Amino acid sequence: MTTTTTAYAALAPKSRLERTTIERRAVGEFDIQIAVKYVGICHSDIHQVDEGWGKSIFPMVPGHEIAGIVSEVGPGVTKFRAGDRVGVGCMVDSCRTCENCKAGNEQYCTGGGMVGTYNAIGKDGRPTYGGYSRAIVVDENYVVRIPDALSLDIAAPLLCAGITTYSPLRHFGAGPGVKVAVLGMGGLGHLAVKIAHSLGAEVTVLSQSLRKQDDGLKLGADHYRATSDPRTFEDLKDTFDLVLSTVSAPLDFAAYLSLLKTDGTLVNVGIPEEPISLNLFSVIIGRKSLAGSAIGGIAETQEMLDFCAQHGFGAEIELIRAEQINEAYERLVEGDVRYRFVIDADTI
Amino acid sequence: MTTTTTAYAALAPKSRLERTTIERRAVGEFDIQIAVKYVGICHSDIHQVDEGWGKSIFPMVPGHEIAGIVSEVGPGVTKFRAGDRVGVGCMVDSCRTCENCKAGNEQYCTGGGMVGTYNAIGKDGRPTYGGYSRAIVVDENYVVRIPDALSLDIAAPLLCAGITTYSPLRHFGAGPGVKVAVLGMGGLGHLAVKIAHSLGAEVTVLSQSLRKQDDGLKLGADHYRATSDPRTFEDLKDTFDLVLSTVSAPLDFAAYLSLLKTDGTLVNVGIPEEPISLNLFSVIIGRKSLAGSAIGGIAETQEMLDFCAQHGFGAEIELIRAEQINEAYERLVEGDVRYRFVIDADTI
Repeated sequence: MTTTTTAYAALAPKSRLERTTIERRAVGEFDIQIAVKYVGICHSDIHQVDEGWGKSIFPMVPGHEIAGIVSEVGPGVTKFRAGDRVGVGCMVDSCRTCENCKAGNEQYCTGGGMVGTYNAIGKDGRPTYGGYSRAIVVDENYVVRIPDALSLDIAAPLLCAGITTYSPLRHFGAGPGVKVAVLGMGGLGHLAVKIAHSLGAEVTVLSQSLRKQDDGLKLGADHYRATSDPRTFEDLKDTFDLVLSTVSAPLDFAAYLSLLKTDGTLVNVGIPEEPISLNLFSVIIGRKSLAGSAIGGIAETQEMLDFCAQHGFGAEIELIRAEQINEAYERLVEGDVRYRFVIDADTI
Repeated sequence: MTTTTTAYAALAPKSRLERTTIERRAVGEFDIQIAVKYVGICHSDIHQVDEGWGKSIFPMVPGHEIAGIVSEVGPGVTKFRAGDRVGVGCMVDSCRTCENCKAGNEQYCTGGGMVGTYNAIGKDGRPTYGGYSRAIVVDENYVVRIPDALSLDIAAPLLCAGITTYSPLRHFGAGPGVKVAVLGMGGLGHLAVKIAHSLGAEVTVLSQSLRKQDDGLKLGADHYRATSDPRTFEDLKDTFDLVLSTVSAPLDFAAYLSLLKTDGTLVNVGIPEEPISLNLFSVIIGRKSLAGSAIGGIAETQEMLDFCAQHGFGAEIELIRAEQINEAYERLVEGDVRYRFVIDADTI
């Protein structure tokens, strides 16, 4: 039997979010019902409400940084039971049979693509609704366990911002002896600093200004440089093995590629709304790569949560009540948050 | 004592090449004087005469696919002696002390950059002149040995076209079980097919038309598809581990990136004169890389020549006399050569 729950939704493109009620599907054989406790606000929530990446589905209940408690499990569920502390990230399903799904790269599913936690159509043909809601029903295979050492509020942003930075840092080899630059010191960037530092890399933050320098150094950065200062690019030429760009604004990619050593990689997790312009000399000289990465797989998300718990950190957050969502959106667009808004779902 | 030799030179941007005489430096302690026997015509010769990549130095004697016989050696030379069969590629010097030079990546020298075989300024402050000439003087460290199994005429194009394709194919892992697409079936592309096939990869040629299909299959391609046929992109979606683009015309990079599997790399060795446009979604979805590669190091160039000798192949060439250079340039721009013009240097 379906259940009704409250949620915050955008009813049309670019509209403000408002409180509403939605239906959740009946708890199926392999499903888990989760009482949402905290949900992070990701910049991509705003991109999708605003249709910055293309047409969206409305009404839209955003939210893919979900932390909560299992309230009910289907009869076939083996991995979780009521009372478990769990998380849901950017996807709630995928084909499960393609090469990528089988390799744990469900985020790159080629058998129809992953099913987004919201702004997507589920396998039942109905739109998915995200975590700005009191409850959600998800197949157990797309749910991860939040270790006891992490409180749920600071764990929530790890489900998108955490895995989005952890996955490429691991994949492209951040670790001892490796020089990593983190471009952007926002929701993703501040977690990238913590993760890269905990992986043992030498971390430099590249941020527009030095405004957040104290925070950056406190979170584990070894160096902090302003990209508005041309000397940054002179001093740091040929320096990094890896540049992780968390920025979605258009960048001068030639300038950032020049900071890489030979064989270095600039990996993008921020997605500009417009195509970028690139002179191929920037990658040909020095055999460099311009790469991208999207979130991470389910097993890797669990690995990331365990890693954060082991190293004793979650996100730096500002906890808000649900009625502050629209204000939070405005502040997020202006970069006025240190470093992630998290909604107390009990206020939804 | 300097020597005088004949050469073909462009005296001004976009001008026709004409016969002239040039001075070569005296054979220094570690220098080798080479009687040039064959020299390939590379598309980059034309780009540089035409200043397509920026200002050039005139008069310009192009030519960086040089095969010849050692005619004299300096007193400190240990690696070569008169009569040896040798080659010179795209560089004749570099700093020798930077991390890249020490690692055998002289082509990415960060200590002032490699010194080009022509259209560059040597360490003596004088312009370098390339291989469209009867003789050249080069430091022994920038000279490679041409194995006896390779005749000099078909070896000449290996010094640029060969190493430019061999190096990225090796670096990005072409080998058994790896699916490689070679984009473009010209001077570079036809060698890429031979090399990737000899490395054991499964090779697909992607060419504008099927005009050269018979040649491609004969040279070792397993498949040959026309990029003018939209079905090529439908059929080959998510297929390749590696796409090697030898094309310098502007491409629809999103379309070619869509042919890569997850974690695949599109590596460019062709250099468009204009910046490219790229939607970063094309690399983010599937964690793909857009990379570049420039020629290869000196030791790797020797390795490539030995590899070609071992597998019994050089370039497919059309041998011309020096007075045909201008006509060859016109035909090369029109793609009318199978697959590399090589000048018989005795006619210079």
